[in-house]
Amino acid sequence: MTSRRVPRAVAIITGDELLRGFIQDANSGFLADQLRDMGVELAEVRIVGDDFDSIGTAIADTTRGPLAADLIILSGGLGPTHDDRTSEAVALAVGRELVVDEAALELVGARVRAFGRMRTPEEVATFTPGNRKQASLPRGATWVDPLGTAPGYVLTSEELTFVVLPGPPPELRHAWKGVRATAELQAVLARTAPAHERLLRMWGVPESAASRTLDATGHDDSDARRVTICARDGEVEISVRGTDVASVDALVDGLTTEFGPAVFAVDDHRSVVEFIADELRARGWMLATCESCTGGQLGSALTEVAGSSAWYEGGLVTYSYASKTLLAGVPATLIASDGAVSESVARAMAEGVRATLGVDVGVGITGIAGPGGGTEAKPVGTVHLAVATPAGIVHRQIRVPGDRSTVRRRSSHVALHLLRESLRDA
Amino acid sequence: MTSRRVPRAVAIITGDELLRGFIQDANSGFLADQLRDMGVELAEVRIVGDDFDSIGTAIADTTRGPLAADLIILSGGLGPTHDDRTSEAVALAVGRELVVDEAALELVGARVRAFGRMRTPEEVATFTPGNRKQASLPRGATWVDPLGTAPGYVLTSEELTFVVLPGPPPELRHAWKGVRATAELQAVLARTAPAHERLLRMWGVPESAASRTLDATGHDDSDARRVTICARDGEVEISVRGTDVASVDALVDGLTTEFGPAVFAVDDHRSVVEFIADELRARGWMLATCESCTGGQLGSALTEVAGSSAWYEGGLVTYSYASKTLLAGVPATLIASDGAVSESVARAMAEGVRATLGVDVGVGITGIAGPGGGTEAKPVGTVHLAVATPAGIVHRQIRVPGDRSTVRRRSSHVALHLLRESLRDA
Repeated sequence: MTSRRVPRAVAIITGDELLRGFIQDANSGFLADQLRDMGVELAEVRIVGDDFDSIGTAIADTTRGPLAADLIILSGGLGPTHDDRTSEAVALAVGRELVVDEAALELVGARVRAFGRMRTPEEVATFTPGNRKQASLPRGATWVDPLGTAPGYVLTSEELTFVVLPGPPPELRHAWKGVRATAELQAVLARTAPAHERLLRMWGVPESAASRTLDATGHDDSDARRVTICARDGEVEISVRGTDVASVDALVDGLTTEFGPAVFAVDDHRSVVEFIADELRARGWMLATCESCTGGQLGSALTEVAGSSAWYEGGLVTYSYASKTLLAGVPATLIASDGAVSESVARAMAEGVRATLGVDVGVGITGIAGPGGGTEAKPVGTVHLAVATPAGIVHRQIRVPGDRSTVRRRSSHVALHLLRESLRDA
Repeated sequence: MTSRRVPRAVAIITGDELLRGFIQDANSGFLADQLRDMGVELAEVRIVGDDFDSIGTAIADTTRGPLAADLIILSGGLGPTHDDRTSEAVALAVGRELVVDEAALELVGARVRAFGRMRTPEEVATFTPGNRKQASLPRGATWVDPLGTAPGYVLTSEELTFVVLPGPPPELRHAWKGVRATAELQAVLARTAPAHERLLRMWGVPESAASRTLDATGHDDSDARRVTICARDGEVEISVRGTDVASVDALVDGLTTEFGPAVFAVDDHRSVVEFIADELRARGWMLATCESCTGGQLGSALTEVAGSSAWYEGGLVTYSYASKTLLAGVPATLIASDGAVSESVARAMAEGVRATLGVDVGVGITGIAGPGGGTEAKPVGTVHLAVATPAGIVHRQIRVPGDRSTVRRRSSHVALHLLRESLRDA
């Protein structure tokens, strides 16, 4: 029996295409989120090649290393071809043979036939020889219902539990739900002491100020209480977690009081857009956007959330001067006198789109994303934002350091928070 | 002297916030890209915590492991606080002491004072005690001019070269440029045999078809010739690389002939938007977009590229039925008869935005992103796209499997390729 400490996990993500830079790994972020939520400490993520040696070495390092992992989560390499070697590596690591699970074989076969309705006969044919391979699992594994043709599974060997998941993100997410409910995973949580996790999200507080407050109140780093502070796009998140529930709660309560209205969410992981959606729905208001430097990124962020048509009417991307006048009714004389990147134009854009689309709330963004277009008075990164509601109009100017992509992303994110605050106060 | 084989690298990315799922690592993708371009094989990426033990263990595994790395690249942990431990871990691994580099100290001090112009005196004060720490490097290190206050450096010990970079992505990218030019890094490339790298990018070919062709022509996996195939958002990329230049080139030439007009780029890493920009600039044409289900994502993608104002006029996000009629002039009767998600409405959107904004090229996207809104005849994932140019109008219908986010991303990407093909053929 191990001592009652926070359970630790290591994630091993396989995929040559990730190491070649063709695609960005999306699974480790999902797993990090899920594990934090369960009180499990993700100690490391390893992105390795598809070959047997790379997977085997990563498993061996983890099992013999000082990390004392309770969970090894592997993703990828469960496909039907000879290049898919993950189950072999796991079987070798635990010293068990691979055996065909008859129930899994039946299900994989059924899935291949079902997918056959949507694929060419030629493509189905390439699947079939791999059926038995995909249903071959290390002896003692508990598999879960797959979204595709690769069953994920969980397997405990002494005090180490392996979770093996298919690589495509939608399949991984589906399989994770099944694995999370298994007796094997619940046993890991029961044997250890999952951390009590609290999350404070703030807006309008510099990371350095948050750090100093934490230094003063006690910036612990033990299983009893551990603090992580993270700033992204102007939002500051403080995660406090550990086995000492009273101590964790006391720190979170203290910080919540300390930072007052800057705290916009406690233990609430929803996106800022979801806060905005709630405020709009509560008032029955419709929203429209008018973007220049962000080129549609704000509209895209708002509509990423399902059901946004209930409160988002539409938007204008007024990239050229002429389109600002034509679509949003910004007077050409105003652009000529104050410049396209100015407080007055941002206000006119917010008011203009509100009028054009006949909605309750309008947002305007105009700025210099760079790398060109900056001047002494208005350097690259200068952005003006405005939100018009029935209660009035608010404006904010920001100056974002960084490249074009950073300026645009930060601008969209500031617009979301300005919108959230305007609605809260309206 | 090691044998002439492809140089191998391992990247060790530090950051508790990455393991907590608060932010997604952006550095490993950049490094993967850069290394591939240099002919270096990235064998593994390890994302580890900020603590000394985690960094030390990752380095130790790599130096003693079977990977035979030539390069260990570390990012993060070069800050001024006691939590920043990367240089200590590197110094221990190579058995050298940390010494203050006087020239680096002077530069870090100057940088802190320069940044002081933009920060509060309180913030500058918190920097100062860390100056000496940031200028303390393992003896023999060659540092490069930093963007911020943390100098990255390169250090060779026997046949292993360490590259140590600051964590914030803009700082890392800047420092990498400096490191890449150092004699130490050039020596690694001279000692080994960087791979000859070719890249084929195709559109309109299923990954399974590309795989079968490769199986037939020889899907090697050795230092002499190695092939990776990757599909993302409908694009298929085949990377062929290795030390056998003639064999690599022969395969690429064969595949280019085999796939004909589906190949849109050979050894050209530019984004699809850059291809579009070239076509538009060559003709002096202006572009406008009209988006429904993508909510502005296409406009955002088009304007991510610097200089887009030369060919992008603006866009409409016509999310509601009413806005489609009001802004893009789509007849309400057409929406009533054919549905908002239909070929005729996509065509009307493309033509409508072209007329409204008075431009040469218009794009329309309308679809069902889900999770709600699907029907038997038009399930979730049904998307209609149209591109109107002076040469006429093209339409395409797609059915995207996957969640809301996938449907939207794929739709934007298909729109870009439809636009690219329409311009090429116009």
